Amino acid sequence: MEPMEPVRIGVVGVGNNISALLQGVQVYRNLEAAHGRDAEGLPGVTRCDIGGVRVTDVRISAAFDVAAQKVGLPLTEAVFAAPNNYPRIVEVLESQPVKVSPGARFDGVPEHLAALVPVDAHADRGIEGVVEELLDTRTEVLLYSLPTGSPQAARFYAECALRAGVALVNCTPDPLATDPAIAARFTAAGVPLVGDDLASHLGSSVVHRTLLQLVADRGLDVDRSYQVNLGGNADFKNLLVRGEAKRTSKHNALGDTSSDRVCVVPSGGYVPVLGDQKVGYVFVEALGWGGMPATLEVKLTVQDSSNAAGVIIDLVRLAALARRAGVGGPVHGAASLLKSPPPGDTDRSPDAFDRAAAELARRITGTPLPGEATAVGEAAVLGGSLG
Amino acid sequence: MEPMEPVRIGVVGVGNNISALLQGVQVYRNLEAAHGRDAEGLPGVTRCDIGGVRVTDVRISAAFDVAAQKVGLPLTEAVFAAPNNYPRIVEVLESQPVKVSPGARFDGVPEHLAALVPVDAHADRGIEGVVEELLDTRTEVLLYSLPTGSPQAARFYAECALRAGVALVNCTPDPLATDPAIAARFTAAGVPLVGDDLASHLGSSVVHRTLLQLVADRGLDVDRSYQVNLGGNADFKNLLVRGEAKRTSKHNALGDTSSDRVCVVPSGGYVPVLGDQKVGYVFVEALGWGGMPATLEVKLTVQDSSNAAGVIIDLVRLAALARRAGVGGPVHGAASLLKSPPPGDTDRSPDAFDRAAAELARRITGTPLPGEATAVGEAAVLGGSLG
Amino acid sequence: MEPMEPVRIGVVGVGNNISALLQGVQVYRNLEAAHGRDAEGLPGVTRCDIGGVRVTDVRISAAFDVAAQKVGLPLTEAVFAAPNNYPRIVEVLESQPVKVSPGARFDGVPEHLAALVPVDAHADRGIEGVVEELLDTRTEVLLYSLPTGSPQAARFYAECALRAGVALVNCTPDPLATDPAIAARFTAAGVPLVGDDLASHLGSSVVHRTLLQLVADRGLDVDRSYQVNLGGNADFKNLLVRGEAKRTSKHNALGDTSSDRVCVVPSGGYVPVLGDQKVGYVFVEALGWGGMPATLEVKLTVQDSSNAAGVIIDLVRLAALARRAGVGGPVHGAASLLKSPPPGDTDRSPDAFDRAAAELARRITGTPLPGEATAVGEAAVLGGSLG
Amino acid sequence: MEPMEPVRIGVVGVGNNISALLQGVQVYRNLEAAHGRDAEGLPGVTRCDIGGVRVTDVRISAAFDVAAQKVGLPLTEAVFAAPNNYPRIVEVLESQPVKVSPGARFDGVPEHLAALVPVDAHADRGIEGVVEELLDTRTEVLLYSLPTGSPQAARFYAECALRAGVALVNCTPDPLATDPAIAARFTAAGVPLVGDDLASHLGSSVVHRTLLQLVADRGLDVDRSYQVNLGGNADFKNLLVRGEAKRTSKHNALGDTSSDRVCVVPSGGYVPVLGDQKVGYVFVEALGWGGMPATLEVKLTVQDSSNAAGVIIDLVRLAALARRAGVGGPVHGAASLLKSPPPGDTDRSPDAFDRAAAELARRITGTPLPGEATAVGEAAVLGGSLG
Repeated sequence: MEPMEPVRIGVVGVGNNISALLQGVQVYRNLEAAHGRDAEGLPGVTRCDIGGVRVTDVRISAAFDVAAQKVGLPLTEAVFAAPNNYPRIVEVLESQPVKVSPGARFDGVPEHLAALVPVDAHADRGIEGVVEELLDTRTEVLLYSLPTGSPQAARFYAECALRAGVALVNCTPDPLATDPAIAARFTAAGVPLVGDDLASHLGSSVVHRTLLQLVADRGLDVDRSYQVNLGGNADFKNLLVRGEAKRTSKHNALGDTSSDRVCVVPSGGYVPVLGDQKVGYVFVEALGWGGMPATLEVKLTVQDSSNAAGVIIDLVRLAALARRAGVGGPVHGAASLLKSPPPGDTDRSPDAFDRAAAELARRITGTPLPGEATAVGEAAVLGGSLG
Repeated sequence: MEPMEPVRIGVVGVGNNISALLQGVQVYRNLEAAHGRDAEGLPGVTRCDIGGVRVTDVRISAAFDVAAQKVGLPLTEAVFAAPNNYPRIVEVLESQPVKVSPGARFDGVPEHLAALVPVDAHADRGIEGVVEELLDTRTEVLLYSLPTGSPQAARFYAECALRAGVALVNCTPDPLATDPAIAARFTAAGVPLVGDDLASHLGSSVVHRTLLQLVADRGLDVDRSYQVNLGGNADFKNLLVRGEAKRTSKHNALGDTSSDRVCVVPSGGYVPVLGDQKVGYVFVEALGWGGMPATLEVKLTVQDSSNAAGVIIDLVRLAALARRAGVGGPVHGAASLLKSPPPGDTDRSPDAFDRAAAELARRITGTPLPGEATAVGEAAVLGGSLG
Repeated sequence: MEPMEPVRIGVVGVGNNISALLQGVQVYRNLEAAHGRDAEGLPGVTRCDIGGVRVTDVRISAAFDVAAQKVGLPLTEAVFAAPNNYPRIVEVLESQPVKVSPGARFDGVPEHLAALVPVDAHADRGIEGVVEELLDTRTEVLLYSLPTGSPQAARFYAECALRAGVALVNCTPDPLATDPAIAARFTAAGVPLVGDDLASHLGSSVVHRTLLQLVADRGLDVDRSYQVNLGGNADFKNLLVRGEAKRTSKHNALGDTSSDRVCVVPSGGYVPVLGDQKVGYVFVEALGWGGMPATLEVKLTVQDSSNAAGVIIDLVRLAALARRAGVGGPVHGAASLLKSPPPGDTDRSPDAFDRAAAELARRITGTPLPGEATAVGEAAVLGGSLG
Repeated sequence: MEPMEPVRIGVVGVGNNISALLQGVQVYRNLEAAHGRDAEGLPGVTRCDIGGVRVTDVRISAAFDVAAQKVGLPLTEAVFAAPNNYPRIVEVLESQPVKVSPGARFDGVPEHLAALVPVDAHADRGIEGVVEELLDTRTEVLLYSLPTGSPQAARFYAECALRAGVALVNCTPDPLATDPAIAARFTAAGVPLVGDDLASHLGSSVVHRTLLQLVADRGLDVDRSYQVNLGGNADFKNLLVRGEAKRTSKHNALGDTSSDRVCVVPSGGYVPVLGDQKVGYVFVEALGWGGMPATLEVKLTVQDSSNAAGVIIDLVRLAALARRAGVGGPVHGAASLLKSPPPGDTDRSPDAFDRAAAELARRITGTPLPGEATAVGEAAVLGGSLG
């Protein structure tokens, strides 16, 4: 694949996810420096290259946050500021010219009034300021990664992306790609929109779903099952309060394997000593031959923000390809990496992602795919946003 | 599907597997008595009906064993004799007319001489006796289920099946269906042969393979992994000695997911207090984004012989269908239920089984399958044994 | 030990605990019937005999509840009424003459007014009614076992016990024995009071504390640790709401082993499929030689209400002995079976219980203990309530 | 406590244990350099100071091994040579003047002849050579730490220690301190002997014993229990072969809590990917009230050789104190740190160690302990070896 320009990313929320993203990219740059840029098999990387953009071809071009301890700092320092607790995994981070800009504040607006208030009226920083910074920094993709549960903030930054013509990736369950009105505006504006809600690189939901499916495939009957998750980062503290929405979302993530014999506890507790680690306990009791029980007891331990960054790295590259290819609206093909993909994007296989990326790359370079005479079926791959 | 005659099964080795088979069938008869013969969703049953033969349509017509505490007993008592330790799961077993007959003994023959000695010279009971009993009892399928590691005994009973024209199901890793010479004789004689080595209904291998595959699918790299199994029945005591062959077999069961980063310990120990339960510990440590570790720790607890009987019930019905359809030689289609299927039988999907059974049923009844005009491709389904 | 009269118990709240108590006693009666009344080593029984009262020498003499589906039913039926979900563990419960009486209702009284309202003004049933029933049924011990978090109800039934002269056992954390004013009234009235808050027969707290202590004893340093509990009965649903008080109580239960490196989540989630089972996950990471980590990962699975009944059976017998011995006020010696024993009752060893019971038995029978000349030190054993 | 001279240790077998010992001491020197020599609470250290000897006051004065890849190397390099796989935990090891000397070889002598052959006849290196090196290097304590199962080698080095007048610490189960004849010779010669068989700093045995004891203390009955251990270092490979002796030793380590309901599998498998880590699975199923089960499932993960070094550091200091105090024969007081202490040394409490060390220190300095007028009872503390 032809090399392409590095992707320029603006980040909203300089939390653990951005620390993991920035440090991880540095880890892989160091590996490439040691083993050559064409190194295959970078550990923990799903796709070294997507349409000519390698995992190391991403740059943070802008950053927004509201925390006093982060705003104004160089990004490479801000990612280590409290309450961030993702561990330091590289000794030296290459300096980057980006400082953290003040983002919009929405805390003071009561929830029940928020819908009535114009989206930027109560922002410290107006939409114009954010848009200007995105344009000045030639940002291609805006990565929205604030704590769950700020639908106003989500809509504010969606508006910014629309006005600046910058692709948006929504890491949170606050609905953007799954909100028909918002999705329509991105389609109309020709701006790509990727979301909603990151699936984990390797998370409790996919482990739970896989085991329930395995039991069913083998012909045993699930008698009772549960999943409970523990964590110690800010996101987890937040979940304790907003558990019900997340519970629904996680039940959805189980798909057909869900039932009233299956209980999901998205956050079983805020456990500070876990730091940025996340622990998931999964239990499955099935009835086998003669009704005799078979049980599976699982503990999953992951670095929560690595689990996010390992997915973000693919989504931002997909979003950049879509923008470069001139394809707007909800981008299809990423359902394997999202908890709530846009309506109609139902293929959760990794292949669907690869096919969508290949088609976007083809459009950018103008080269037909091998053995492909016409663009038949491309709408199915890329969604309804194609002109 | 039209109902068919019950399948008449001869069993070699009246161990826990037979106890689980007999008691489990009784459990399901009781459920049918309560809820009707057409009851769907019998718990722990993969296929209620295979080609018209329901899970309750099997009868034990003959039984062979060498243990003094079992020979001569009614089968319904022998299944509870020591060292059997599968629990009693039904209060009343319908009486059956079968008594346990003395089987052939091979213990005294040194392994290195065994190949030279005519197969029946050192048997307490000659081949003629066994063949006569199989014919007298109108047995259709001989289920070979002795402890692993008696290749002589396996060949002896294969010879009996061949002479009596009775289909053979080999539960053990001692090679029959995977031995080309033996397979050729079954093909030539037009006698069906199903084997080798039962996969578990839900076992450590399939759980381990599934998790390794999941990790790979998500784009993480397996760094180190192990699987260790514990049990307390006679089969497990036996494994301690013959661990190496089993280790290879279990590594094979991991398929593409195996590597030198993955260790398998087929028997980590004979643990008498487990009785007929089996415990498998599976550990997977993978590298995620930035090289950060993600770990999966699993404990699988199963009733070992239920795990076998849940598979046996499908294999004996498949073997009976093949015999009734007049199809001899290694039967293809059961790879999802076997650790070592015959060469060329590579499709491990449950669908392959269902297709093979449907084709056999079609031959028996002479009815074309819906939408099927010709028998194109049937050789691929049923193996090379078709005339 | 001389046999004594069976203990007559009134129960407040006919929940799972009472189901476990009633059925368990029946299990042991059946064992005694089979193996003789002097049978030793009844499985799951800490003390077969306490001061001449065997585990089977308890009778339910009265029962109070407010649930429509329980009131009016024979006790032996009420223990199986929803939402009770303790399993049926004996086929036949000996019929007992007790029916469930309506208890006092407090639900409608706002918490902030409750202290002002006379304790019986808003009860369906006045104190007089309860007292009369306790007297009529010659009840010796009132077992208070309502859901946590009804301090009013606790005080109401304490008042009943005081007026009827019946010993009180408080299973809940609502403070009675640890409330100085209430304790003083029991002491003044010469009525025994046992509480507060049952320790589990084998619970997460004692397992966690034991492991933390072990690590410290071996000279390793606890680096981080957590405990999280899951359950599916009504008590657990209740805990989700009142978690903070319970968190404190559970931290107290860790004693010296608690620290800010240790997190306790009393209820990590209400998991209906667990029914009356309770699951506790305990994690301990310690630093060993050279600072290298050592980890302990524990899963504890118990039948929640058996865990309560196994402790209740000893507390009610201790309370009855105190009453028969004429000893009033907070009874000392039971700290090993309580989460919050009365002030000054600090010896958590099982021996302390045995010594206290022996001393009470001696008072009843008037027999000096072997080798005991005088009653020196009895105040230390039995608390300040001795005349 | 007055500071004393550093202890000079000769090591037999430069395996993972020595790597852990050497690196760990360096870790603590670094901490002392940073925080002061009087630093308290070094992480992972049971006793910072024993009788005036701090954990950092040990020096390796001599080292013996037979492996070609280690002999002749500086000790600080040899500890990292294969098959050693203890991780590198400090960047810089202070250089030490010691090189690894060739040890005695016993591999070629058949076990059944070994007893007849003079102990040094088949050694590459005679006793004289070893004794001379011990004397030249002013070694005080010889630490015997070869793989389990070389009784000849154990006796050879015991002979060297006796002749050189150097205290011996036996890390292995090969009997020295528990062999009456050998013990008598050390007593007669006035040379201290500490052993046999290291307990782990935190190992499966003590965790298992603690949980079985907890269950019994709470009044539940252990119904079935097992312990299985996995590891990936050379010692573990060795155990697979010699499992039976170790099984007995580990059952002994369970003390009163052992029974036929408890199964111990010392090595459930050699799992190379574990490296120097050790994993222990412990399962306890107990019967609680009404016979309902309560289960504890535990996974213990430790760095195997840190687990040894954390105990060695106390034993070598105790041995040196005994030698400096002029006390010979089996040293009592270390039963908490040994699997097989000498006969009569039954107090497994940590206090016993502290008392013994204090008494030895008192003898060295001549200072009476506070409040101690006479040495009454010292024989009980220090064993029968006192003149």
